[in-house]
Amino acid sequence: MPLIQVKLIEGVFTEMQKREMIHRLTEAMVAVEGDNMRAVTWVVVEEVRSGHWGIGGEWLTTAAVKALAAGTPAG
Amino acid sequence: MPLIQVKLIEGVFTEMQKREMIHRLTEAMVAVEGDNMRAVTWVVVEEVRSGHWGIGGEWLTTAAVKALAAGTPAG
Amino acid sequence: MPLIQVKLIEGVFTEMQKREMIHRLTEAMVAVEGDNMRAVTWVVVEEVRSGHWGIGGEWLTTAAVKALAAGTPAG
Amino acid sequence: MPLIQVKLIEGVFTEMQKREMIHRLTEAMVAVEGDNMRAVTWVVVEEVRSGHWGIGGEWLTTAAVKALAAGTPAG
Amino acid sequence: MPLIQVKLIEGVFTEMQKREMIHRLTEAMVAVEGDNMRAVTWVVVEEVRSGHWGIGGEWLTTAAVKALAAGTPAG
Amino acid sequence: MPLIQVKLIEGVFTEMQKREMIHRLTEAMVAVEGDNMRAVTWVVVEEVRSGHWGIGGEWLTTAAVKALAAGTPAG
Repeated sequence: MPLIQVKLIEGVFTEMQKREMIHRLTEAMVAVEGDNMRAVTWVVVEEVRSGHWGIGGEWLTTAAVKALAAGTPAG
Repeated sequence: MPLIQVKLIEGVFTEMQKREMIHRLTEAMVAVEGDNMRAVTWVVVEEVRSGHWGIGGEWLTTAAVKALAAGTPAG
Repeated sequence: MPLIQVKLIEGVFTEMQKREMIHRLTEAMVAVEGDNMRAVTWVVVEEVRSGHWGIGGEWLTTAAVKALAAGTPAG
Repeated sequence: MPLIQVKLIEGVFTEMQKREMIHRLTEAMVAVEGDNMRAVTWVVVEEVRSGHWGIGGEWLTTAAVKALAAGTPAG
Repeated sequence: MPLIQVKLIEGVFTEMQKREMIHRLTEAMVAVEGDNMRAVTWVVVEEVRSGHWGIGGEWLTTAAVKALAAGTPAG
Repeated sequence: MPLIQVKLIEGVFTEMQKREMIHRLTEAMVAVEGDNMRAVTWVVVEEVRSGHWGIGGEWLTTAAVKALAAGTPAG
């Protein structure tokens, strides 16, 4: 039953990282719900195009998110 | 008013099949709500990339879904 | 895999009708995808409060939808 | 907190128009909620493929939406 | 075609404010897409229960959002 | 940026468990994305009414999910 829908900006994470997300989010949910619920725990990951995500009206690009993740200023 | 949002894994269904889905899901809804609601019945189909869908923490690929649909083991 | 998320306005359909929707939408999807996919076909129905749905900026109430379904003018 | 998720059909709007949408939708929300909420106002824009959107069971293509926007018949 | 789905925390906004949101978000979208698209511009507003929204792992309550909107510290 | 939207059936989990979910899902995401992304990691939890969730066309009730979680047959 638990359905987890994740939205990211494209190009920020590698395929490996997205698979790790699916694994870790599932384990996080199973830790609360119990292992009997594992088979019906779904995680869906979708990616939004660079610039198609606004925070406070500012367009968030792939480059900006990478800079944020790295702890360096985007400008 | 009824809004039906469908998520699939990419590459499993042909364009023809997806159009048939939109048609059949609309008819299924109209069968319950009545024909007067047809014009405001929306169906949106979105596709998620292969491997971006987890069931029980396992990554579901286009190939795995096709094998499941065909009734053959994925491995 | 197929995930079908339905949004309705509350108070328009009975519990029986909503269960019939889940049944019919599942059958519609299975008719396209094949019966092997049935067990992984999910349908989630959510209801939005009366007036919380806008079409062209007009607030759609439960009463307005019922009038539309009945084919009678809302006013 | 306010989360605004927008779905469009691909190829109808330019990148410039989508950025303008994010800007205008944020301003519309801030006009109601107050400027203190701006930083936690998110807008996510996603695009659905041409023909993957049904209205009343009819497949809406990019060309049909453009014709509608221009006020010319699609046929 | 444009579909705008809004999520809020319950109890923060009055019914009047939510109706104003639907109106203003529709006008914002129409300003970009043109008036011919108005009739197929949908806005759906959903509310999430207090505490069911996490930002950085912190639970956002109705009271906390109201304090943020008012520009006063939540603690 | 990462947005995590969770759907559950109502009445299965306590408020404490839902808060633990928000905490654990956030930590799972931060473990992949890095701590600089924590402040822009959102988790939204929504609950669907008992019987409004279909798996393979069967209506999933709160009681059925609790039985599944407990590892006891629902019937």
